[in-house]
Amino acid sequence: MNEPFCSFADVLAAAARIAPHVNATPVLQSRSLEQLLGASVWFKAEPMQRTGSFKFRGACNAVWALPATQAGKGVITHSSGNHGAALALAARTRDIPCHVVVPHGAVPAKVASIRRYGATVHVCAPTAADREQTCARIAGETGATMIHPYANAQVIAGQGTAALELINAAGPLDVVMAPVGGGGLMSGTAIATAAMAPACARWGAEPEGAADTARSLAAGRREVDFVPDTVCDGLRGPVGAPNFELLRAHGVQVTTVSDDETVAAMRQLWECLKVVVEPSSATVLAALLKQRDAIAGKRVGVILSGGNVDLDAMPWSSR
Amino acid sequence: MNEPFCSFADVLAAAARIAPHVNATPVLQSRSLEQLLGASVWFKAEPMQRTGSFKFRGACNAVWALPATQAGKGVITHSSGNHGAALALAARTRDIPCHVVVPHGAVPAKVASIRRYGATVHVCAPTAADREQTCARIAGETGATMIHPYANAQVIAGQGTAALELINAAGPLDVVMAPVGGGGLMSGTAIATAAMAPACARWGAEPEGAADTARSLAAGRREVDFVPDTVCDGLRGPVGAPNFELLRAHGVQVTTVSDDETVAAMRQLWECLKVVVEPSSATVLAALLKQRDAIAGKRVGVILSGGNVDLDAMPWSSR
Repeated sequence: MNEPFCSFADVLAAAARIAPHVNATPVLQSRSLEQLLGASVWFKAEPMQRTGSFKFRGACNAVWALPATQAGKGVITHSSGNHGAALALAARTRDIPCHVVVPHGAVPAKVASIRRYGATVHVCAPTAADREQTCARIAGETGATMIHPYANAQVIAGQGTAALELINAAGPLDVVMAPVGGGGLMSGTAIATAAMAPACARWGAEPEGAADTARSLAAGRREVDFVPDTVCDGLRGPVGAPNFELLRAHGVQVTTVSDDETVAAMRQLWECLKVVVEPSSATVLAALLKQRDAIAGKRVGVILSGGNVDLDAMPWSSR
Repeated sequence: MNEPFCSFADVLAAAARIAPHVNATPVLQSRSLEQLLGASVWFKAEPMQRTGSFKFRGACNAVWALPATQAGKGVITHSSGNHGAALALAARTRDIPCHVVVPHGAVPAKVASIRRYGATVHVCAPTAADREQTCARIAGETGATMIHPYANAQVIAGQGTAALELINAAGPLDVVMAPVGGGGLMSGTAIATAAMAPACARWGAEPEGAADTARSLAAGRREVDFVPDTVCDGLRGPVGAPNFELLRAHGVQVTTVSDDETVAAMRQLWECLKVVVEPSSATVLAALLKQRDAIAGKRVGVILSGGNVDLDAMPWSSR
């Protein structure tokens, strides 16, 4: 049997490694939402993580897992979203260079945030080919290590620490659920949950407009040829190859939700939990509402992934 | 020397009494806000209290402090805001009747919330005279006990439990700050802080458009003849008579802030702390920003009072 791409031992090592840098985010409950769902629910509030999302856990673990000499040459990634900001701040905690390749036309506020956390921003053409080429060129010139947003074992191990904290805070759970995009958070969550609570179901939530993971799991092979169409800007990427294998190995079941369901759930989270969550986070509440019969009377833990939203453009005002 | 209206022993008794019913709300930190303020700051997140504000603490303590026979006849208050909803839910935790008198023309969503928590709503004319008369009539008919929103010793003791938890979580503090409206939260906060950390300063934040407490403290006597004009709907009431005496006795200093400063601070709290706060809560950040020189390098604890806002009407979009 092969060594797994990422194991629970890696998650535990990540927890120890990132502890001095991450926020121990709160685990929240809302009796209104519990009544609505007919279940006991614990929400791990990663919007309150540094940089506003769980991504800081994985980025921080990847940065601090590097040997000193290699780390000194810096890190590089491509991301116009939460991973870019997370890697920038993670690199700053170790005082090493960080390069973030963003496509021309990326949201200026997000690019400004990556710069504010101290990274050097490189703009490329908005194609996968130019993105890869730009990353390779800069890595070649600087010796910086590529930290992929989700298809990276140390990133996955770091993301798994959120479920670790959730399960430790909530106690025995019947179901743990997280959003699924590239599958970094979900595979880390599945690894931690399977090790800590083998009988606990591992569920994912995915937008209908980027449901490649649900399709891939149904087909038994990775199917990532699609054009994303969803309000969940954090979940548009295709599931990673190692991530897909981990989700399959851990029996992850995915519920898909429409953007209308997600936006309604996002508003319910703001109103009942008083946490600023981004649409990607709200997919889990939308999915639980669709699974009410299956969770009736059970103990459910969910991971709210992030809270980076444009406060001038609430999605419910435009729908 | 007279017995004080409310003492630290009352706060400790309240903490024990309400523990089975209240949420132990999180104490949050944001490195971005700490950089902005040049100080270490702990935020007690009462938006995550049941009913969405600290008001549930005082209401719950007042309800559970009643002898059984008296409690059985119910409780009554006048409020179209957070105290009405809080008393309604507090009464439901003891399974006793609750009457809430609201003025004709009150915000329908808030009235609906009071009803949803199980109270009987009575509509009166929007004058102080009719409000008092209506309360007196219903109290006479039912035997219900009046629970004033802030000029009530058990309410003040309950509100003081937020500072108790804040100081226990944060450790030694140089300043504790809370918003000031009627003075229920601020007087409970001052009592708890003075007892637990005598050297710690007690500061309040008050909107310029309802700055009767700042004026009263400066004048050395209660001056409450004013017409409130502020976006902070929770802070429009005049400071209560016992509250004023408690604030004066505990050396509370009040910083006043404009609505523009409050709305800007509200947005910063949403963005950096990811907590949905209402304008009243944001006065404390606005006040700290005005007191940057005074808090430089210090340890500051603040109470974010509540998070009940209309998500369809962000105050920054209309300004």
